[in-house]
Order: sequence, then C-alpha cells, then structure tokens
Amino acid sequence: MNVTAPSPTPASSYAPLQNDTFIRACLRQATEHTPVWLMRQAGRYLPEYRATRARAGSFMGLATNTDYATEVTLQPLERYPLDAAILFSDILTVPDAMGLGLSFALGEGPRFAHPVRDEAAVAQLAVPDMDRLRYVFDAVTSIRRALNGRVPLIGFSGSPWTLACYMVEGAGSDDYRLVKTMLYSRPDLMHRMLQINADAVAAYLNAQIEAGAQAVMIFDSWGGVLADGAFQQFSLAYTTQVLAQLKRSQDGITIPRIVFTKGGGLWLQAMAELDCEVLGLDWSVNLAQARALVGHSKALQGNIDPNVLFAQPAQIASEVGRVLDSFGTPHMGAGRGATHIFNLGHGISQHTPPEHVAALVQAVHSHSRSQRGA
Amino acid sequence: MNVTAPSPTPASSYAPLQNDTFIRACLRQATEHTPVWLMRQAGRYLPEYRATRARAGSFMGLATNTDYATEVTLQPLERYPLDAAILFSDILTVPDAMGLGLSFALGEGPRFAHPVRDEAAVAQLAVPDMDRLRYVFDAVTSIRRALNGRVPLIGFSGSPWTLACYMVEGAGSDDYRLVKTMLYSRPDLMHRMLQINADAVAAYLNAQIEAGAQAVMIFDSWGGVLADGAFQQFSLAYTTQVLAQLKRSQDGITIPRIVFTKGGGLWLQAMAELDCEVLGLDWSVNLAQARALVGHSKALQGNIDPNVLFAQPAQIASEVGRVLDSFGTPHMGAGRGATHIFNLGHGISQHTPPEHVAALVQAVHSHSRSQRGA
Repeated sequence: MNVTAPSPTPASSYAPLQNDTFIRACLRQATEHTPVWLMRQAGRYLPEYRATRARAGSFMGLATNTDYATEVTLQPLERYPLDAAILFSDILTVPDAMGLGLSFALGEGPRFAHPVRDEAAVAQLAVPDMDRLRYVFDAVTSIRRALNGRVPLIGFSGSPWTLACYMVEGAGSDDYRLVKTMLYSRPDLMHRMLQINADAVAAYLNAQIEAGAQAVMIFDSWGGVLADGAFQQFSLAYTTQVLAQLKRSQDGITIPRIVFTKGGGLWLQAMAELDCEVLGLDWSVNLAQARALVGHSKALQGNIDPNVLFAQPAQIASEVGRVLDSFGTPHMGAGRGATHIFNLGHGISQHTPPEHVAALVQAVHSHSRSQRGA
Repeated sequence: MNVTAPSPTPASSYAPLQNDTFIRACLRQATEHTPVWLMRQAGRYLPEYRATRARAGSFMGLATNTDYATEVTLQPLERYPLDAAILFSDILTVPDAMGLGLSFALGEGPRFAHPVRDEAAVAQLAVPDMDRLRYVFDAVTSIRRALNGRVPLIGFSGSPWTLACYMVEGAGSDDYRLVKTMLYSRPDLMHRMLQINADAVAAYLNAQIEAGAQAVMIFDSWGGVLADGAFQQFSLAYTTQVLAQLKRSQDGITIPRIVFTKGGGLWLQAMAELDCEVLGLDWSVNLAQARALVGHSKALQGNIDPNVLFAQPAQIASEVGRVLDSFGTPHMGAGRGATHIFNLGHGISQHTPPEHVAALVQAVHSHSRSQRGA
C-alpha cells in the first residue's frame, strides 16, 4: 500500500464511530454529556508533540509528512478522553499552494516570501491545483484510519478573509495596516482576492471531506479586526460563498460545518443566517445570550478563556461549571434543540500544564452529566 | 512665575471657551456640527512631533517636561480645526509613580523594571503621593493657559484593569497570560491591586481637573481581552468606583467623563448604567444599534477604523460619511438628546499621512453640517 497517496476510501470501509457525541451535538441532537475538544489540542504544550516536532526538523516537515501528522493528531487523545480529533495542519496551506512561499522561522510565526500587495500580484492569484495539497488529504485519510472510529475527525481551513490578511501582510500583524489599506483604497482588488480564496477554500474543504473528514471548521481568526460593515462585506459574504459550495454529506452521512469568527460576537445575529450547523464563540460572548439569539438554529461551540488553564485544577473545574451553566441545560429529548460543544475561546497556549487539560476535560464531562440529572 | 509648579488657577482666570462644541456634545446638547478629535492626535505621524521628541531625547523626557508637553499637545491644533485638545502624556504614569520603574526602549513599547507578580509585590502597592505626578498637573495647567480658550482640554488615565495588565505583564502582551493567571488563580490579589488602582486613578483625574482639565477620559484599552463575567467583575466594577469618586464640576462648570473600553461592544448595555456622560466605541460597533441601546443616556464617541486614513482623501470622506450616517442626524432641538463625537476607534497610526487627517476633519465638519440641513 502506498501510504503517501491513498485512493479515496468509501465511508463504509472505515470502522463505525464509537463516540458520536460531538457529531450529534453539532446536529443539535441530545447527548449524555457535553462533548469537548480544544482548538490546537495537538500542539506545543505536549512534550510528546515537541519530541515528534524535533524529529520532523521543522513545522512544515511535521505538517507535510503523513505519518508525523497522524502521530501528533492522535497524541492528545491518548492523554485525554476528548470527543473529537482535529487534523494537524496549518491554516496557511492554501496560500502556500498558491505559490506564496510559506515558511516558519524558529520562534516566530508564519511568513510568506511573496506577499500579495498590488494589482499585478492579485492578477497572478488562482485557485491552486488541489494536487499541491495532497499531503493534507493524505493526512486526513491516514488519521481517519488510525482513529479507527474512536472519535470523529474534524477538517479545517482559514476563512477567505483570514487567508487574505496573511497573504497581504506577509506575516502576523498587530494593526492589519497593509490589508486594510488595500481594503479601503482598492476594494476591487480585495474582492478579487477574496473570491479566489473562497473558491479555493471550498475546494480544499470538499477534498478533505472526500478524504475522510467527518466535520469541517472555517477559522475566521481575523474577522473580528474588521469594522462593522466591512466585516459583513469582506468576511461574512465570502464565508457564505464557501458554505454554499461545500458538500453536505459524504457516503450518505451528514458533514457538520462549523464557523468560528474570533471577536465576532457583535455580529452573531448576522451569523445566525449562515448555512452551517455550528457557530464557534470566543470568551467575550455570554453563552446564555448567544443561545437566546441563535440557539434555535445553530449548535454553539466554545468558549472558556484558555488562560483559565493556568489556574489550579479546582479553579479550572469551577470556571468550567460557570461556562456550562451559562449555556444552561442542553436539549435532552428527541428531535433537535439547543446544544453546546465545549471548547476554548481560542487555541490552547503552549505554556499550558498538560495535567490542567485533564482537569478541564474531566470537569466538562462530569459537570455536564450532572446538568442532565445524571 | 515658577512654570514647573504653578498654583491652582481658578477657572475664572482662564480665557472663556471659544469653541465649546465638544463639551456641549458630551452633555447631549445640540451643536452645529459633530465635534471631532483623534485619539493620539499629538503623535509620531506629525513631523513636528518627531522634531520635538528628538530635542527632548526620550519619550519620558517629552512627557515630563511642561514646555515640551504643551508644545506637542498644541501641534495638531495648528494643522487641523479639531474641536478638542488632549493632554500629552502616557497611560502608565500612575504605576510609574507607584515605583514600578517605567521606561521606553527605542522602537519598543513601555516596560516596567518591577512588575507586580506575587503577593509580596501586591502588598507593597499603595496609592502614590500625587506630588510624584506633579509634572502631569503642571502640563495640564500650562496647556490650558496656552490653549487660551480655543478648544477644551481633555485629561485622561488608564483604567484600573488596563493599568493592572501592564503592572503584572511588565510590558505589552499578546495573550495576557500573566495577568490572567493572577486573575484566575489569585482573584484576591487582583482585587486588592484593582482597588488601589481605582483610588489612585480617581485621585489622579481629580488633580487633573483641579489643574485645568475640562473633561476626563478613562482608557480601558484592555477591557476587551476579558471573558464575559470577568469583564464586569475585574474591569467595569473598578471603572465604576473611579467614576463614583470623580469631581462632577470645577468652579461651577460641569466636567464631562468619557469611558472607552476597546473591544467592549458586547457589554454596551452594562456600560449604559455607568455614571458618566460619554461612551467611546471602537469600529466593530454599529453606531445605529449603539444609539438605540444607550443614546437615551450617554453621548457616543467614535468610531472610524484608523486604517481608513491610509485610503485616498475621497475614500476617507466617503467612509466618514458612512460613520456619521450610521449614527444618524443628532439631536437638534433644546434640552438633551442623542449626540455624537467623531473620533477614531483607536489611536492614530504613526504611519498616517498628515494630509489625510486634514481630509478626515474637513469631511466630519462638512458632512455633519449637511446632516443638520445646513
């Protein structure tokens, strides 16, 4: 068997899902406990991750190797009874496949060798050949097989706007000056780039679904830096376009779609209209208010502050209880109702003590069972 | 005359205010145009500021010298018909006076030599002797005299929470890990520090009012990084305490109080209850919704994205019109009603072309006059 280029595998050939709590909560169906997974759960806070990363030599060496990507994706599941796995990859794989030249300098964030800052650079952009992203789809299939039905596998992508931020800035930014300069002074170029990104993201997520992803998430990590009005026009409109192109099911099984806009709490009403199953929320959002606003149409995912994990286990348990109680008792009967997927409001910090994550996961499961009267 | 230690000057000895548009808008009274000023309007984007800064030798050399502080405060008023001046100073003067050792490394942000990270350090904190901040009050009096009634002078302070962020982190931060670790693991220490900060900020702002400030603003620059629940408990509660201690008037003239929480749009309903006259808003907030929510009790200040200033003048004018129209026609009759003070949603960028600021100010004045049918 050629592990680096597996052929598409029909869902029937995978082991059946043993823990479908996460999928059911996505679909607003009752579950016995509130499912929990953590953004960036396979990451630097785990010593076993750092060991694999050292063997791989570099971040991209890790992300582009099927065996390493599979290994690190499964590491947090060995430690904690998490209810979902998420593909180990980076949100910038798509612009890298467009030829922008992604690299990770040691101790720094991502950097593009060829940022997109003028009309000529935008004119050269195109939806990349998905073959250039085959390493991602291979990783998805490999992880799905390795999971062997334990929990579902989530695929993901950056949102069109979030990709555009990195593509124009060329790296992280604290003021988004270059990308917003283009937005305000050349909105035509920005729309052209976002249209290409939307088509690319849709193709990328559909290929992940075909490769074995059982849910997909769109990370609009930088949607929250936009002004009211600009958010709707330059971020939400293109997330909507991605969603419209996504496969609804694979081999007859529904694929839930999650949209997470960091800092997007003020636009929740507009996001309630998105054609997706789940909205991710950061810690600034009051879950009771969010449930009242959108709980009739979407499951909610979030939203504890990752810095809670620096407190002691008893304090972590108490904050977990506060977040679960803020959402309130989820839907418990037949049919569909308001459901909650527990998560952080942002990626886990590399400085997090691993044993504190165990306390959080345990608290979510036990407190959410007691909410249901168990 | 000893310019470094002027004695308190009764308001009657200052020239009468020629342009009171800003003060009237703060008090929700009708004005002929929407007043405008810009956060950090005296700053690095102005070549004349950079020249004075070079003569002063350092940022603190500039801020602690009465003549320099007066000079740079007035510089933007020479260029633009702004409707208010704001004291040139730094938000970290108060913790510096507490003995934390503030410095500004070249090209970097502020840094404290003695951050507050444990019980012993918190135990040593106390409201500083206001004499250690006399250079600030001297600057206020000097600027008020130099303004000679052209426009009102705004004094300011960081909020108790925002000061605590810097005091614990020791510098800027992108994750607020240290201050949130203290918040979640030792809330007792955090409350003790915030109580001291609140008393210090109140004394500091009252001394600025006595020295000649005609309005005061509390910058809760980092309130928006808190989780829902934590914001109310660790930021809003202490801003409330500051407001309760502030002087309402000086020499019989009302002193408007402005509270600005960057990223605080989700908590606007709670902030409507604050005992202040004006709420500052960042660009993520929809002004029409904010007016509907709090316009019956507070003037609103904001909220254009400072990055709009990187577009061309015609585009800047169009975005200014969009923001003014989003608020809608302000109160125009006798008595009090909904009013708007135009500002950026955050401090102006050092990379801003100065001539673009002229376009913004002109657009605010002309468009807001046309809104009133003039």
